[in-house]
Amino acid sequence: MQLTAEIIARHIGGEVEGCGDVSVSNFAKIEDATPGTITFLANPKYTHHIYSTKASIVLVRRDFIAEEPVSATLIRVDDPYSALAALMEVAAKVLRPSHEGIEDGSFIAEGVEIPEGCYVGAFSYIAKGAVIGKNVKIYPQVYIGEGVVIGDDTIIYPGVKIYYGCRIGKRCMLHSGAVIGADGFGFAPDANGVFHKIEQLGIVEIDDDVEIGANTTVDRSTMGRTYISRGVKLDNLIQVAHNVEIGHDTVMASQVGIAGSTKIGSNCMIGGQTGFAGHISVGNHVSIGAQSGIAKSVPDGSRMMGTPAMPMGDYARMVAARKHLAELMRRIDSLEKKLNEKK
Amino acid sequence: MQLTAEIIARHIGGEVEGCGDVSVSNFAKIEDATPGTITFLANPKYTHHIYSTKASIVLVRRDFIAEEPVSATLIRVDDPYSALAALMEVAAKVLRPSHEGIEDGSFIAEGVEIPEGCYVGAFSYIAKGAVIGKNVKIYPQVYIGEGVVIGDDTIIYPGVKIYYGCRIGKRCMLHSGAVIGADGFGFAPDANGVFHKIEQLGIVEIDDDVEIGANTTVDRSTMGRTYISRGVKLDNLIQVAHNVEIGHDTVMASQVGIAGSTKIGSNCMIGGQTGFAGHISVGNHVSIGAQSGIAKSVPDGSRMMGTPAMPMGDYARMVAARKHLAELMRRIDSLEKKLNEKK
Amino acid sequence: MQLTAEIIARHIGGEVEGCGDVSVSNFAKIEDATPGTITFLANPKYTHHIYSTKASIVLVRRDFIAEEPVSATLIRVDDPYSALAALMEVAAKVLRPSHEGIEDGSFIAEGVEIPEGCYVGAFSYIAKGAVIGKNVKIYPQVYIGEGVVIGDDTIIYPGVKIYYGCRIGKRCMLHSGAVIGADGFGFAPDANGVFHKIEQLGIVEIDDDVEIGANTTVDRSTMGRTYISRGVKLDNLIQVAHNVEIGHDTVMASQVGIAGSTKIGSNCMIGGQTGFAGHISVGNHVSIGAQSGIAKSVPDGSRMMGTPAMPMGDYARMVAARKHLAELMRRIDSLEKKLNEKK
Repeated sequence: MQLTAEIIARHIGGEVEGCGDVSVSNFAKIEDATPGTITFLANPKYTHHIYSTKASIVLVRRDFIAEEPVSATLIRVDDPYSALAALMEVAAKVLRPSHEGIEDGSFIAEGVEIPEGCYVGAFSYIAKGAVIGKNVKIYPQVYIGEGVVIGDDTIIYPGVKIYYGCRIGKRCMLHSGAVIGADGFGFAPDANGVFHKIEQLGIVEIDDDVEIGANTTVDRSTMGRTYISRGVKLDNLIQVAHNVEIGHDTVMASQVGIAGSTKIGSNCMIGGQTGFAGHISVGNHVSIGAQSGIAKSVPDGSRMMGTPAMPMGDYARMVAARKHLAELMRRIDSLEKKLNEKK
Repeated sequence: MQLTAEIIARHIGGEVEGCGDVSVSNFAKIEDATPGTITFLANPKYTHHIYSTKASIVLVRRDFIAEEPVSATLIRVDDPYSALAALMEVAAKVLRPSHEGIEDGSFIAEGVEIPEGCYVGAFSYIAKGAVIGKNVKIYPQVYIGEGVVIGDDTIIYPGVKIYYGCRIGKRCMLHSGAVIGADGFGFAPDANGVFHKIEQLGIVEIDDDVEIGANTTVDRSTMGRTYISRGVKLDNLIQVAHNVEIGHDTVMASQVGIAGSTKIGSNCMIGGQTGFAGHISVGNHVSIGAQSGIAKSVPDGSRMMGTPAMPMGDYARMVAARKHLAELMRRIDSLEKKLNEKK
Repeated sequence: MQLTAEIIARHIGGEVEGCGDVSVSNFAKIEDATPGTITFLANPKYTHHIYSTKASIVLVRRDFIAEEPVSATLIRVDDPYSALAALMEVAAKVLRPSHEGIEDGSFIAEGVEIPEGCYVGAFSYIAKGAVIGKNVKIYPQVYIGEGVVIGDDTIIYPGVKIYYGCRIGKRCMLHSGAVIGADGFGFAPDANGVFHKIEQLGIVEIDDDVEIGANTTVDRSTMGRTYISRGVKLDNLIQVAHNVEIGHDTVMASQVGIAGSTKIGSNCMIGGQTGFAGHISVGNHVSIGAQSGIAKSVPDGSRMMGTPAMPMGDYARMVAARKHLAELMRRIDSLEKKLNEKK
């Protein structure tokens, strides 16, 4: 795949500045690009790299003003990252291995139908009663339990495990090691402090267009369902406990943990390693900074940070003040001394 | 399975209030129950749902007083959650898929005996010298290394990996993606800062009635054993490092991390995302709040929270005071100014 | 394997004190050693155990002075832990199961060559174009995607998943459940708040002598590579996001999370559960305490702790002062009162 700057600019609605005939065959990060690659500049932190990059083409904002000479051909667009993403989507279809058909060595229970366009990799196990949509790609070593439903065009990467009865929507992507529908963590202690298991008889239901990261775990509910709405994107190593509900178009960075029965709203952005207590409710359009601890319910539109979390402005002030804590102690000592001297 | 309120009440020692003939066939959460389901009310946070629930039957405490009309039939019991749990245990036997026998496509090394009542799923691997108890259920894609011992009635869900030499007790449950017996993290740096591996020659030993969550990792010890005692319940994505010991009937929420050689006592309750430093000792009956950092040993009966952890009361006071930090700074500024003016 | 104290001392350059004829056949921790085992004393916290240990031989520092009688034979060495490690390395070759050859039930794509000395376990999948080095050990249930390159002498434990195009160096060790090369977490929101996937077309490249812990995830880059340099050791359940780079000989304890495009230097030591923001740069020889939050770039040689992180000395002072926060508030109240009274 060799494409010229002119052809690319036409495809993404951009404006060429420099040689339009230069051609590229791959993508690169601006700081380690080589000739023959295309890159982009969106984050101002990286601006200085544009003067030294070896990339042949750089996508920049329409209002970008070079303060030094730039040797690469520029393509000016409204949103360089989106423009690059559009190009990458085309490229992905060519570059990424594609699969179809049923490989020898897979286990498909009697009565399960594998529709056209599907892939079932070797050593994958599909239990009885499972319903597999069209064009579903099931990589090797996947486990799909009894009665699981997988929507059309969903991709399930190697080693994903889906327990019985769970439901996965259309156009979802589940990365390796994700575990969907393991038992929720429910135990009741007896008088001797011995914990007895509460059976977890519910399911996990994942709506359309959801992406689940590698080694993320979503537990089945005690009863009813643990529910992940349309368009949610979960990064790697996240814990979603039983009976949790996550609203549509919410994204969470890696290693977030959500305790049981908590409801997270739609269009939220959750920073990595954040923890949510159980049985709370988080509104829509909420932003939460990394490593926060959300112990109480949070209304729509909140921007929270810290453990326990507080509004982001308060957090910033608290952190700034905290640096002076040791100094504050000395100042109070000194104030007390002075005041006593005056007596 | 259709059961009437009268039959259920008799089974769990409850008292019917309302129509005893109403029947149910499934469980539901009180807030999204449908007719034909049974639910429960234990957490006071959910009390308001009882007046609008569509459930046919609700289990409530004996002393529950309705403040508005309730359309569901009530069954009064000492402990609604336990009563429901007892019902669910019966239902689980009917609802959950059960397995027996050896599926084609599993690998069982020569000389390994699979006793009566066992299940070995396809693509599971049992290495030589492994000893498998009665009624052990080994789901597909499980790895059981050389000489591993699995006690009677233990359930090992798809994709669990158990390295050579480890020992698992009776009636344990290991969820998908759990890794038992990977090498402990032991390296010694040389004069050039290059780290050399310390061989990890010990094992993991897990006692009876232990549940290990999805994608939780328990490392083998350098020598001797990493030991998890009877009745311990570990949630998902927990890290148990080499040589750690956990006392009986201790429960840990997800994403807890325990560094090497630390000993945790019995009957402890550990909140999610808590971290323990290495080589420390935590007493029995200790409660630790979520996201805490336990850097030092902690005596029996402690209730700790925060990073670094402090007694829960101190933590609450610290958090309350911390909110006023920026204000405190201003007050000190003002005090100093006033005092100087008085000079 | 029965070895006397004399033979062991000669092998590790140590000096015997006590009976040189006593022999051992296994290793043990000092506190639960049994007769016939060898142990070591390095951490002063454990010194008291040497007076009661049942081990037959204890490795101690050359300058160790017993304050009570010791019944075990001592072997004095410069560094007891290193000396033990050297002995364990020998023992590991005897004790640990070794494997060679291709087991029935593995899937090796046409054209992939498996060189001498390799092991390919049952239910492992090697896709087309993969290049496998000499003496590579691929345990059961491993997935190796299209075009993946594995260097000589690397060990890949059961259930590891490596996506297409990734490159693993020589003498690496990847533990069960590690996922290498899953898609980086890249999405761009549209005007309606719907997130669209940014294709992740790069790879993961892991250099020689790297160890990756159980269930750790290393995401493929958007373009270019996510890069882990020579000698890096990552513990379990760590998240390495897309485009991250980690310098040589850096070690990280479990549950660390590194957000996208961050660069970590060489020879760093990172405590467990630490989180790094994206797009920052951490210098060489940096030490970071457990559970820290690194929100900004950090220069060479820094020693940081806390969230957000500060120099370790400042952190210690802040923590010490923080304990007195509630008291400080009372003291300020009292100062204000006194000052007002004086007016």
